[in-house]
Amino acid sequence: MTSNGPIRIAATRGGAVESVHSVHAVVAGPNGDATHVFGDPDRVVFPRSSLKAIQALPLIESGAADHFVCSPAELALACASHEGEGFHTDTVTAWLDRIGLDPEALACGPQWPRRDVDYREMVLARQEPGRVHNNCSGKHTGMLATALHLGEAPAGYASRAHNVQKRVFEAVEALSGESLDDAPVGIDGCSAPNPALPIRSLAVAAARFAEASPERLGHARADACRRLLNAMVAAPEMVGGTDRFDTDLIRVYSGRVMSKTGAEGFYMLYLPERRLGIALKAEDGTPRASTAAVWSVLERLGLLDGQAENALRHHCRPEIRNCDGLVTGEIVDIS
Amino acid sequence: MTSNGPIRIAATRGGAVESVHSVHAVVAGPNGDATHVFGDPDRVVFPRSSLKAIQALPLIESGAADHFVCSPAELALACASHEGEGFHTDTVTAWLDRIGLDPEALACGPQWPRRDVDYREMVLARQEPGRVHNNCSGKHTGMLATALHLGEAPAGYASRAHNVQKRVFEAVEALSGESLDDAPVGIDGCSAPNPALPIRSLAVAAARFAEASPERLGHARADACRRLLNAMVAAPEMVGGTDRFDTDLIRVYSGRVMSKTGAEGFYMLYLPERRLGIALKAEDGTPRASTAAVWSVLERLGLLDGQAENALRHHCRPEIRNCDGLVTGEIVDIS
Repeated sequence: MTSNGPIRIAATRGGAVESVHSVHAVVAGPNGDATHVFGDPDRVVFPRSSLKAIQALPLIESGAADHFVCSPAELALACASHEGEGFHTDTVTAWLDRIGLDPEALACGPQWPRRDVDYREMVLARQEPGRVHNNCSGKHTGMLATALHLGEAPAGYASRAHNVQKRVFEAVEALSGESLDDAPVGIDGCSAPNPALPIRSLAVAAARFAEASPERLGHARADACRRLLNAMVAAPEMVGGTDRFDTDLIRVYSGRVMSKTGAEGFYMLYLPERRLGIALKAEDGTPRASTAAVWSVLERLGLLDGQAENALRHHCRPEIRNCDGLVTGEIVDIS
Repeated sequence: MTSNGPIRIAATRGGAVESVHSVHAVVAGPNGDATHVFGDPDRVVFPRSSLKAIQALPLIESGAADHFVCSPAELALACASHEGEGFHTDTVTAWLDRIGLDPEALACGPQWPRRDVDYREMVLARQEPGRVHNNCSGKHTGMLATALHLGEAPAGYASRAHNVQKRVFEAVEALSGESLDDAPVGIDGCSAPNPALPIRSLAVAAARFAEASPERLGHARADACRRLLNAMVAAPEMVGGTDRFDTDLIRVYSGRVMSKTGAEGFYMLYLPERRLGIALKAEDGTPRASTAAVWSVLERLGLLDGQAENALRHHCRPEIRNCDGLVTGEIVDIS
């Protein structure tokens, strides 16, 4: 195992360092062994939206995805932090309609679309955002579909005590190998419960998800992992959206590497070919640092080829420009 | 002198720490003595927009402010990072008109107003933002007024080589006691040059500005400092805008404490009554941390009374709410 200090990402200005971020990262295999450690592997962190692929497992394991004939786009949306673009909200709305629910059934609150062009279009149309625009609306539709299929009352499905969340927590425990009995549990941006775990355990969970081994996980869960990974590769635009990092990364690696961002500077990455998982957290919660650190880790794993560099550079090593378009600095790794 | 580690500001979730920021801070007097140090006082940082009050000194010292009969609101705008609200842009536009220049003369690029309500109003009116909307347009108008009054060509006034910037750099050197000959110089968000200095020297500069002593600075400079401080107290809404931290702080302290934010998590504070200056920098550049740390420093100086707490709590110790309005965490000092 290679152990290092945290990855240090800097924003520069005029050639000098202006601000510095520390990022803790672990690369691990499915047996629980870390292959690379940067910083503190035992730091307890909230995976936030990085947890979505695991949160979507019960949708498939319960039979709900088959019962409701979910498309790959819908399964990808269940794992997504989408931008609220038209093709996202249309797909979620149609899915909700098919399971017989109104957008008001979603526990995730209203949220403006992320992209300025979509936001402005809504302002001009004098529309207010709905729950379906929330970046988590696909995840929530998947949770509701699961509850309906299993004959559970959908009301209160975002509560920790509801069976929907109990199944999610069981899946997190099984994949991470951690008991969540005493884990801190936060309320996520979308109102679903979100447990905090050591970074190392989240990397292991990602590795086991990526490996999708029936011997390790059982056939049903292994199959569910594989179907979700395949869905994200089939419909990467649903995982994030136009010019979003996760979408661009999944596309350029064609399924060899997949990433899912979480709020407050968190990432989980799935490397099925190498049977590895990565979890990383910017100590200060800043996305520019965590996104830059994904590049740093992939580079150290020898996975950053020219094509990936071209697709991801503007996300991970961007120039910093001011209001007049002048380049004033850049984002760099100063580890 | 009290010396401590950096101020540590955390964002919590579900009662657990989710992200942590380190903030370096120095409280200093006009003689160059630091009274309180948190973290690294020698860290070289870009003051960014915190420098604006110093950048506005030549406007008064040159006689331009008197020649153009600048109002306190205009002088406050010269020191401001305003939100581009109507009363800001109207005042800047009228000032530009009075000195015979078009908004296109401003070197600061176009920028949308900061507040959603103003942004939406422009979208609905199918307007694009102009240079006058840039949060620095008051500073730039002051620079242009100075050049015009002194018979200098306004073109290129944002270049380091122009007399406008030479005067600014001389004022920074005089107040901070630092030579800028070898200092890193960055291009600011508004395209003006911005030198990097040790935090301690910026605190000393703020103390000397706040003290405004004719013996120390000479009559012209001391008078200019006092007029700018008075202008900010007379028109705090011009320094920031509606519900902006600097505006609320200047208002609640009625001139006893004044703050000016800078991008990438920087602050300078002026305490005329105590003849002290404060400079602080969030290591990672995050404003939620630097704003929280201002509260921490004022508290340790015994300056945080109940009235100030009421006015500033939502800026410095805010609850964190999600899209559905649920409280998910808070910003706290865990030093």
